[in-house]
Formats: sequence, structure tokens, C-alpha cells
Amino acid sequence: MNPVIGIVMGSSSDLQVMQQAADVLKQFNIAFEIKIVSAHRTPAIMLDYADQAFARGIKIIIAGAGGAAHLPGMLASVTTLPVIGVPVKSSNSIDGWDSVLSILQMPNGVPVATVALNGATNAALLAVQILGTSNLSIHEKLVQYKQQLKDKVKLMNEGLNG
Amino acid sequence: MNPVIGIVMGSSSDLQVMQQAADVLKQFNIAFEIKIVSAHRTPAIMLDYADQAFARGIKIIIAGAGGAAHLPGMLASVTTLPVIGVPVKSSNSIDGWDSVLSILQMPNGVPVATVALNGATNAALLAVQILGTSNLSIHEKLVQYKQQLKDKVKLMNEGLNG
Amino acid sequence: MNPVIGIVMGSSSDLQVMQQAADVLKQFNIAFEIKIVSAHRTPAIMLDYADQAFARGIKIIIAGAGGAAHLPGMLASVTTLPVIGVPVKSSNSIDGWDSVLSILQMPNGVPVATVALNGATNAALLAVQILGTSNLSIHEKLVQYKQQLKDKVKLMNEGLNG
Amino acid sequence: MNPVIGIVMGSSSDLQVMQQAADVLKQFNIAFEIKIVSAHRTPAIMLDYADQAFARGIKIIIAGAGGAAHLPGMLASVTTLPVIGVPVKSSNSIDGWDSVLSILQMPNGVPVATVALNGATNAALLAVQILGTSNLSIHEKLVQYKQQLKDKVKLMNEGLNG
Amino acid sequence: MNPVIGIVMGSSSDLQVMQQAADVLKQFNIAFEIKIVSAHRTPAIMLDYADQAFARGIKIIIAGAGGAAHLPGMLASVTTLPVIGVPVKSSNSIDGWDSVLSILQMPNGVPVATVALNGATNAALLAVQILGTSNLSIHEKLVQYKQQLKDKVKLMNEGLNG
Amino acid sequence: MNPVIGIVMGSSSDLQVMQQAADVLKQFNIAFEIKIVSAHRTPAIMLDYADQAFARGIKIIIAGAGGAAHLPGMLASVTTLPVIGVPVKSSNSIDGWDSVLSILQMPNGVPVATVALNGATNAALLAVQILGTSNLSIHEKLVQYKQQLKDKVKLMNEGLNG
Amino acid sequence: MNPVIGIVMGSSSDLQVMQQAADVLKQFNIAFEIKIVSAHRTPAIMLDYADQAFARGIKIIIAGAGGAAHLPGMLASVTTLPVIGVPVKSSNSIDGWDSVLSILQMPNGVPVATVALNGATNAALLAVQILGTSNLSIHEKLVQYKQQLKDKVKLMNEGLNG
Amino acid sequence: MNPVIGIVMGSSSDLQVMQQAADVLKQFNIAFEIKIVSAHRTPAIMLDYADQAFARGIKIIIAGAGGAAHLPGMLASVTTLPVIGVPVKSSNSIDGWDSVLSILQMPNGVPVATVALNGATNAALLAVQILGTSNLSIHEKLVQYKQQLKDKVKLMNEGLNG
Repeated sequence: MNPVIGIVMGSSSDLQVMQQAADVLKQFNIAFEIKIVSAHRTPAIMLDYADQAFARGIKIIIAGAGGAAHLPGMLASVTTLPVIGVPVKSSNSIDGWDSVLSILQMPNGVPVATVALNGATNAALLAVQILGTSNLSIHEKLVQYKQQLKDKVKLMNEGLNG
Repeated sequence: MNPVIGIVMGSSSDLQVMQQAADVLKQFNIAFEIKIVSAHRTPAIMLDYADQAFARGIKIIIAGAGGAAHLPGMLASVTTLPVIGVPVKSSNSIDGWDSVLSILQMPNGVPVATVALNGATNAALLAVQILGTSNLSIHEKLVQYKQQLKDKVKLMNEGLNG
Repeated sequence: MNPVIGIVMGSSSDLQVMQQAADVLKQFNIAFEIKIVSAHRTPAIMLDYADQAFARGIKIIIAGAGGAAHLPGMLASVTTLPVIGVPVKSSNSIDGWDSVLSILQMPNGVPVATVALNGATNAALLAVQILGTSNLSIHEKLVQYKQQLKDKVKLMNEGLNG
Repeated sequence: MNPVIGIVMGSSSDLQVMQQAADVLKQFNIAFEIKIVSAHRTPAIMLDYADQAFARGIKIIIAGAGGAAHLPGMLASVTTLPVIGVPVKSSNSIDGWDSVLSILQMPNGVPVATVALNGATNAALLAVQILGTSNLSIHEKLVQYKQQLKDKVKLMNEGLNG
Repeated sequence: MNPVIGIVMGSSSDLQVMQQAADVLKQFNIAFEIKIVSAHRTPAIMLDYADQAFARGIKIIIAGAGGAAHLPGMLASVTTLPVIGVPVKSSNSIDGWDSVLSILQMPNGVPVATVALNGATNAALLAVQILGTSNLSIHEKLVQYKQQLKDKVKLMNEGLNG
Repeated sequence: MNPVIGIVMGSSSDLQVMQQAADVLKQFNIAFEIKIVSAHRTPAIMLDYADQAFARGIKIIIAGAGGAAHLPGMLASVTTLPVIGVPVKSSNSIDGWDSVLSILQMPNGVPVATVALNGATNAALLAVQILGTSNLSIHEKLVQYKQQLKDKVKLMNEGLNG
Repeated sequence: MNPVIGIVMGSSSDLQVMQQAADVLKQFNIAFEIKIVSAHRTPAIMLDYADQAFARGIKIIIAGAGGAAHLPGMLASVTTLPVIGVPVKSSNSIDGWDSVLSILQMPNGVPVATVALNGATNAALLAVQILGTSNLSIHEKLVQYKQQLKDKVKLMNEGLNG
Repeated sequence: MNPVIGIVMGSSSDLQVMQQAADVLKQFNIAFEIKIVSAHRTPAIMLDYADQAFARGIKIIIAGAGGAAHLPGMLASVTTLPVIGVPVKSSNSIDGWDSVLSILQMPNGVPVATVALNGATNAALLAVQILGTSNLSIHEKLVQYKQQLKDKVKLMNEGLNG
């Protein structure tokens, strides 16, 4: 299967967080690719990645980065695909605020769909939801996923009173 | 045309910001509806809105709220549609931090695609991008929109040197 | 005894903090129940809980949650009972600020009585104080509790100089 | 009628905010008193106020203060009545953060029920809810108040589409 | 020797930090006392302490507290002696911001001389400097202390190049 | 009279705030001088000022500065006199946080007695309190000043009920 | 004269701030160019600008941007010239924090020399200082500039006492 | 070789961070010196260091400090050389915010080139870039360094897929 989701991150140090996105996509059986694409160390490669993603069949890009996190916003500056940004609380971050603000606060015209700090799981779920807007089978799996969230709470309550 | 985008907000005081989302959707000729749906004053109506949105043909929900902004997250708790959250810097907000954090920091399992503070324009653009993932004609309009952003910068430079 | 206080929390991961509320209520011999009720995973159950609490004899709800903490505010949107919110510094929190602000900054019309970060002990004491406004025996126990706080400081001073 | 709610504030400059609490209590026909009681300028009077409130028939104290806002917490240190704290964004405040944190972050043993920045309306509603836990007539009025909140949203929607 | 400096703190958990103030005063051979005086658990004792300090020969009060740290400001509300406040980063603190702001942001009329977070050493030095304004022998010791700070840097440089 | 208090500030733009310190000292009939001494524009003059202050009869320095506010800390690095720092919310400040933190967070060995943002009134009162530790007549005036604070609250209450 | 300094900014709305950099360079008689180069709207043009700057004789780039301010860091990702970043407090900024953090917190390997919020004057002075490291005539002008700063303080003092 | 870069820091506790600057300069074969120069403990020595740096052949000063970090700004107040400031997250820092703000927010006229929290590596790279503006051989090494950053990302990707 050709990948429809591109997971990219600025450094291999982001992998521990971003792997959670890959795990969710596997669970939903969505084809994806995962790459290190650094805005600051490989800017031309990064722009090329964004520029060619649509033609390569990518529908959504999930981008994780920490500190002065420019990767999601710069990909969004090139592509018209939805870009989902994951602020990563990297070792050089000031409590995550820098990662969050430099991904979230994009100017009018160039949106990035930002999720919670280290929220790679939700980034992948959001990507699945986007695919689900035009794919009933995926939509159906999301309905089941929501049911599992409910069931898990039910189990927690049994544990509480058991 | 049946609406495919639902724009909702917690109060009519959010309208000045959220109107910008409506304006973008009109520009892209996307059918939408706009409603006041308050998480805190009409919780049952809010859950119903989210519950029925898919069956009514809504594909994406854009939700704006300020202060302890629970609307986007609560809609996302019910629906499997993508929910885009717009933190609004309302009069009772602490510099916007409360709006941003209570929309962004959703737990695993229930994503909200958060945009910048007062970023209703980008919320609408993100919704258009999502529709564009399965609609080439919309995608084409986004390519043109990006070109217009570039042209605007060119004009700015002419103004600078003129 | 039927429970008069409902302690609810968004996840079993909040239990370590919220157990402190239960311990205080036991100490004051107040009947309570404790449940996992997730705003984001079981929204309908949550609204039902709030909707039926008064009829079931609950007088006060203590709700703990972390991150984008919507549980206390959403319960308060349904019930007319006092809702006491405990911001929990969960693992996905940005230093607790998200938990605090998304519980505290409720709009006019829907109050949540917010206590300190991880302040489940004080949430329970506040609930006891509320019961004490119409129950002299409970009021009397609170007077004794205050005396114990004083005595403890006296003991600390003896330890200092001992 | 003897007052059952005491509204106190640190300075007459807090009156503009705290008057909103008085307005709500009038609306619910609850007897109250309103006074300037300064933690920092009249500490002994403040402690006396807290000490005698119960005997004078006060059931709940609503205290507003700004900056290093010690009034709510200090009243709570003396009385066993519920104390509701209103952080006021006074002119000498750092964006309200000082007011919020010095009211909210009380140590274990001495709770203050904190509401939003400048949230005097909600402070009064919370007081009414507390009275409602032992007074069905007040409870009934709160049910009506909640209905009015819903009706107001309905009207907003009519305005939107009108 | 009668104590001229009173070191007080809200809880024995502040002792590890506040002991540093005691150590500095011993080094300068200044008589002091050290006590637990809790604003929130022993408010009347606290006011008495402040009220009687001058008559007992105390010239300066050093007060440490964490979280909603009301102790320094409340002592200053009673006494006309200089009060030096030490914000303590206690376990229930939000990164120390609550301790800092609730000590620093005192209203006009009631100053607290605030030092850095956990800065008990500097609180004691400041007290010594205050005594030095009317005591040449103490002033002379401070001049020597400053020289020792310089010498220590010289030693550090030798270590660097050694 | 020779000045015993030196009021210094980094720029004439700080004068509006720092004038309040002068006004308080006049009220207490304390001799003072007021000067612009810039840490960043006249560093050598600044160090000289601090170096000679003691010999010139100055007993306390009050220093106001905004932004990266180095003046109070640098004066304290030279002199053994107490230095009181006033964080000024200057036009180039980030909401006052920079002024507060760069004055407050001094390293061990070099204290600055920090007051609230724009708190020049309290800086002067603190200086008077320090003089009062060795001067009974000044102490007596402070006792009267405290009484005036109380009387003012009494008047406020009369206004409230009038 | 060929420009040796390139002043670039993300939008014409940044011009009011960035013009101050131009004014300083004129004062020092340094040849410069000024352009709108948007990271988010003209990413390819931006990379080209950075890529060709060295060959075109540019020695230093001054880049101003607000919100999620990616321009300085992205220019620095391409060029080996020093890039000076000016965080601009734009209308869509959260009190300037986003601008500051997304410029300052660059990862190892790609520095940006960051100046204060809206600090375009200092950005230009820093550029002049950099040129001065290899040009004695410029260095000499900087020595004179420093003298003018001192003289200005002298004048301020005369105004104070006049 | 005479040193052209001066690395200074406020305390030996900053050495672990600042050593990274030395390591980068060694890698580029740039002569440097490294010293403890404390703004707060050795103010006169600090001013002398800045005053004599130019005459001694120093071209750029890199200064690291934590907490109320005055060293970089005070050096910049004296010298016309570029000063690069490294905010150090020292043990007495409030999450690094104090270090960042007291270095970054310098007033107009006295710039400090600020890098990321603990960003000593980037401080040294920035110094090398500054030298590179007038030295083609150094410029060439920077071009190679940038290539190595790219190669490292390529290797990371091989590791990812290996």
C-alpha cells in the first residue's frame, strides 16, 4: 500500500513520542511512512517533502517538533494538505511552552492543526478522522474506537469497586 | 445546499471572531451552518448537535469558545467527525491562556485540531483542506489561494519600495 | 447510608490524588460514593450522573480532572448542586496550568468551586463546610478540626526546639 | 432579614466587581451584607469579622481581593464557614495571575472556593447553590435560573438567523 | 542575648530552606529566634507574634512560606518592623509562581521585602544589612563578607585553569 | 539635611513611578536625593554611586528599573547598604515579568529587597521601616501611618453604606 | 553602495517596528536593503533569499516576525551568515511570548541572535557591532555612540534637578 | 594564539553548560579564553574585563549566567564588542524564565545577542559566524558544518528504516 499519511519529525529524539502516532495508524490499518525531516538542518529537503507529498499520494502530514518548532508550520507553508502539528517536550524546551506556541500561533492563511503537548496519539486519531470524512469504513472503525473508550471507563469503575 | 461544515460557538460574543470562519467558507463556496451552542448553558443540546452532525451530512465541526473553553472538546467527545477548536480571547479570559489550554490539552483518544488564538480564518482554511483531501476541485482552489498569499507579499514589497 | 457526596474523576490515574478527598470524608463520617466518570470518553453517562445526582440525594459533587479538565465544568452545566473542582497535575499536563485554568475560568452562570492543584483534601473539607452550614453537628466537628490544625503547629514548634 | 451571606472586599476599588455578587443575591432574594474588610490594613478587624460571622448568622462569606490577595484565605483560616474567593484584576495586579494564585493555592486544611478572575457573579451563584443544598425553595429558583440560561442561548440563535 | 531577628515559617516543611537564614545569622553572630507560625492554622498566634515583636526587642522579621504564602504579608499588616519574605517552593506550589506572587505583590501601604525563590540566605543577609545601617561593627563584617565573595571567584578561576 | 536615602532609576521614563517614593519620604520628613543612574548607559558612574554611597551618608538605596532591570542588583553587588528594588512596568517590558524576575532572582550573597511591580510607595515605606529599626521617632510615625490605613478603611465603609 | 545588511520581515505590519533598525543603520551610514520575505507565504523565495545573501555581499541578516515567528530561524537554517531575530509583538501574538520563544529557542547547530521584544534598534546596533569586529572606523563610531548614551543620562539628570 | 573569543560565566556551576561553547570553538580551531567573571561578586573586575577586551584583541564575548542574569548585559554596557548571552537554567532559577528574560530584554542602545536556554553550543556557533563575516576560511568551515548537520539527518533516517 502506498502511504497516505506522512509522519515526520525534526530529530530521532522525537521518535519516542511520534511512534505513538505510528502505532495508532497501524491499529486502524492506515498506510503511512515515517521520516526524519529537519526544518533547521535540511530545509530544502523539507520543502521538497511538502511540495511532493500531494503528488506522491500523501493526504495528511503529521509533524512533530520541539523547542522553536518550525517544522509543522513550514510544511504547511508549502503544501495544501492538512498538517497536524505535535508539540514535543524536548530536552531543550522551556517546559514545552516554546514547542506549543511556535506550532500553534500560525498566521492567517497557513493553518496547522495543533494537538496537545506530546499528543502524537491524538494527531494520528485526528488524521484517521479526516480520512473518515470521505471513507465510511474508516468512520465505522472510529465509532468502534469510541465505544472502546467507553468500555475502558466501565472497566476502571469495576476495578474501583472490586 | 446542505451544510457540510458546522460553525458553532459558545456565545454571541464570540461571533465577531467566528464570522471570519464563515467568510472564508463563503469565499470557497462551501455550504455551512452557524449556531450558538453552549457547552455550559445548553449541554444536552450540545451533545445532541454532536451526536446528529454526521447523520445530517456535516463533515467537520468548527467550534469557538473562550475562558474555560469546553465546547470543542465536548463536541469531540461525542462525534467522530474532525473538530477544529478556535480559542477565543473573550473578555473574561486571562490573556487567552485559559482558552488555548482548555482546548488544546485534550486527553489521548479525543483529539481537537486547535488553531491560534482568535484564529477562525485558519480554522476555516483547515476545514477546506480537509475537504480537499477527497475533492480535487477544492484542492485546486487551495492551490490558487496559496498563490494569492504569495502575490500579496509581492504587492507589499512594491509598496515598500514605491 | 446513602451517599451525600459524589466524588468523581476522569480517569483511574486521578485516583491517587482523589483518594485524599475520600479519606477526609471518612474522617468526618460523611457518606460518599466514588466513581470514574469521564467527560471525554463517557459524555452521556457524565450528563446523566449530573442530571440524577440531586434526585439520588447527592448534595455536593467533587470532581477531579487533569489537562483540558472539562469534567467539573460540564457537571456544573447540568446540575444545580455545588460542584467542587480539583485540578489534577496529570502526566499530560503543562505544569498544571491547563488543569487549573480549564476548571477555574468558568463563564458567568455556571460556577465551579475550584481548589488548589491536587487539592483533593481541601475539596473534601469544603464539602464538609457546606454540609456544616445546615448541620450543627458537622459544624462542631469542623471547629475541632481547626483546633487540631493549631495543635499540630504547637507540636511542630516543640520538635523545633526539642 | 438578617444577612446570611457576607460580601467583603479589600478596598473600595474592588466594589465595581463585587457589586455583581450583590446583584445576584438580590435577584435570588437572599439577605446579605457588604463591607470593606482589609486583610492588610485592618487585620484584627478582619479576624474578628471571620470569628463572629457564624454567631451572627452568616452562613457563607464571599471575599474579593486583588494582587497579593490574602483576604479570602485569612478569613478561611479563622472561620469554619465556606469562604468563596473572587480574584480581582486590580490595577496593581500582574495580569491577574497574582490574585488568582494567592487565593487558589491554599494549603491543606484551609480551603477557599475560588472562582474565575473577576467572577463575582459566579461567587454569588455558588453561595446560592450552597444554600440550596438545604433549602428546596432556593434549589427550585436555581432550576429556573438554569432554564433562563438555556432560553438566552435560544434567543441568541434567533438573533443570529433573524 | 535577646533575639533581634525573628525567623518564622508556615510549616516544618519549610525548615530545610529557612535553616539557611539561621546559618547566616550565626555566622554574623546575630541573636535570633526560629518558630513555626502559621498564617492559616494559627492566625491569632501569628497576629500576636507580629503585634508583640517590637516590644520583645525584635528588629526584623524573616518569614518564609509556600503556595498561597500569606505569612509575610500578614505579619507586615500588623507590625511596623521590616518584614523580609522568602517564597518557598513547597510541594504544593505551581513551580514557585504562587509563592513568589503572593509575597511580592503587596498593596500600597504594607511592604514586604521579597527575596528570590528559596532565597533564605539572602533574606538573612538583607537583615544583617539593615542592622548594619545603624551598627558600624556589623557594617564592617559585611564589607569582609563581600571580600570573601570576591575571593571565592578568584579561587574558582584558579580551579578552572589549574 | 544630608540625604539618607538615595532614589535612583535607570531612565527619566521611570520617574512617574519613582516619584511616589519621593512623595512618601517627604511625608515622613526623610532627607533623600533622586538621580538617573543607568546600569546600561553609565555603568562606571553607577558603580561609583554605589561605592561612595555609604561614605556620603546614604543608608538605603531605592532603585527602580524596567525590562532587563539590572540596576538594583548591580548596586547591591558593590554596596553593603540595603538596596530596595522597584520593578517598573516600562514600555519595553513583557507584562512586567522581565522587570520582576531580573530584580528578584538575585544569587546567594547579594540580596535585593524587591517590592511589587511599580511599588515605589512600598519601597519608600520599607526604607522608612528600616530607618525606624534604630530611630524611635520614625517608628512612632509608622505606627501613626498604620492607624491612618485603618481609618481610611473605616471611611470607605461609611461611603459604602452612606 | 551594495547593501551589507539585509532587513527582512514577515509582513508589512512589522514595518513600524523594523523601520527602527533601518534608522539606526542610516545613522551609522551602513548600506542595507529592506524587504518583505514571508516564511509562511513565500517559503521558496525566503530560502532563496538566504541562499543567495552571501554571494550578493550581504554580511548579516536582521529578521523580524511575530506570532509563530519562523522567519529568523528558517533563514538561519540555510545561510551561514549571522541572523539576528527581532520578536515582534504582532496583533495575533499572545503578549509576545510566542514571538520570543519561537525565535529564541533554536536547536543546537542553527543559532539566531535574538534581541528584546520589538527590539529592532538593538538588532541594528548588534549588526553594527558585528561589522565593527573587522572595521575600526565602525568600531570608533560605536565608541562615540556609547558616549552619547552617557551624555543623554547626564542631560536627564539636569532635567530632574532643573 | 591570542584569544579572540572570551567565554565568561558567573559561577563555576555554569561550567557544565558553558564548556559546550569551548568545545565548538576548539572544533573550529578558534583561540579563546574561559573565565569566571561574576557581575554580582566581582563587579569592578567584570567592568575591567569588558573595558579591556577590545585592546586585548578579543572580538566577541560569550557570557553565560543564570537567575537574575546580569553578566551579559553589564558587559555589553561597557564594551562595543558583540556580546552573546547564554541563559543558564541554574538551580536557583524559576524554570529558566528569569535567566532568559534578564538577558534578552535589554533596553535600546545596549544589545545582547541572546541564544536559547542552555544554548552554549549555539553561542559559540554564532561567534564563529560573526568571525566568518570577515574571514572566508572560517566561512568555508561553516558551510562544511552545515553539510554535516544534513548528513546527520540522513544517518538518522537510515537508522529509522534499518
